Amino acid sequence: MTISMYQASVPTIVRALNNLAAVLEKADQHAAAKKIDPSALVGARLFPDMLPLAKQVQIASDISKGGSARLAQVDPPAFEDNETTFPQLVERLKKTVAFLETLKAEQIDGSEARTVTWQTRTATKSMQGMPYLLNHVLPNVFFHTTTAYDILRHNGVELGKQDFLGKTT
Amino acid sequence: MTISMYQASVPTIVRALNNLAAVLEKADQHAAAKKIDPSALVGARLFPDMLPLAKQVQIASDISKGGSARLAQVDPPAFEDNETTFPQLVERLKKTVAFLETLKAEQIDGSEARTVTWQTRTATKSMQGMPYLLNHVLPNVFFHTTTAYDILRHNGVELGKQDFLGKTT
Repeated sequence: MTISMYQASVPTIVRALNNLAAVLEKADQHAAAKKIDPSALVGARLFPDMLPLAKQVQIASDISKGGSARLAQVDPPAFEDNETTFPQLVERLKKTVAFLETLKAEQIDGSEARTVTWQTRTATKSMQGMPYLLNHVLPNVFFHTTTAYDILRHNGVELGKQDFLGKTT
Repeated sequence: MTISMYQASVPTIVRALNNLAAVLEKADQHAAAKKIDPSALVGARLFPDMLPLAKQVQIASDISKGGSARLAQVDPPAFEDNETTFPQLVERLKKTVAFLETLKAEQIDGSEARTVTWQTRTATKSMQGMPYLLNHVLPNVFFHTTTAYDILRHNGVELGKQDFLGKTT
């Protein structure tokens, strides 16, 4: 018995993005309750040369839609990276999830042995579908969703790991 | 075509732990080069009520060995959580990887439809093997390995996402 590439990708990623959207909504409520300018959180970084919260969310969106689209052999939607508020970042995640939900299992199943090719700023990369998902897409999605959480936690937003994981049982 | 529960679990987790060990080694070298007491990094937190670096590493180890052992229906080794230095934390990860590498594909394959049961501080939980791996074990492993990375980055250790991801292509 086995699991499918679709099961290991789209539902897992949708779940991570929905959990992040709920984390951002809590942060927005926290800012309102504490009379904090929300932009102080949206622009917060863990170190001066790290990316701010908004960019962490945008990259989580990009790797989610780009990675899943490559596995499905379709083009992902392009978004402008112009979000500056919590509601806009939540909307970005909802648009990303809406795209992911258009992908059908039969488009992604079978991709484990296909070669996936993509362009970085400096090079053209290619990997087989299975290591692309397990060693590149999923770790990247969780890296940026966790770092977004960590930025907010570091700035005093009251969150727990359950917010990151979502309800599982 | 599909992927197996073993492929989605043990090699993915081993990779994440080996990458974290390399990150910890870089942090140890950074402390030596900058004449920083390494214990300032090992005990660092992103917020007073968050867990320090050493505990993030220990939990990453625990969920890795506990999660994989539950899928394989064996008992994981118990470690003492007494690590206080970078070399000890690296050794903890190496011991964890050594255990994971004793697990055979045939022990874990088929676990997608088995019920996995475990004890938390407050409750007994159970999930089917596939959601247990995809929605609980992998997100938890990446949550704690990313948070360990973020703590070190926040404290000025020179790391990049490539250190977290490891070489993929």
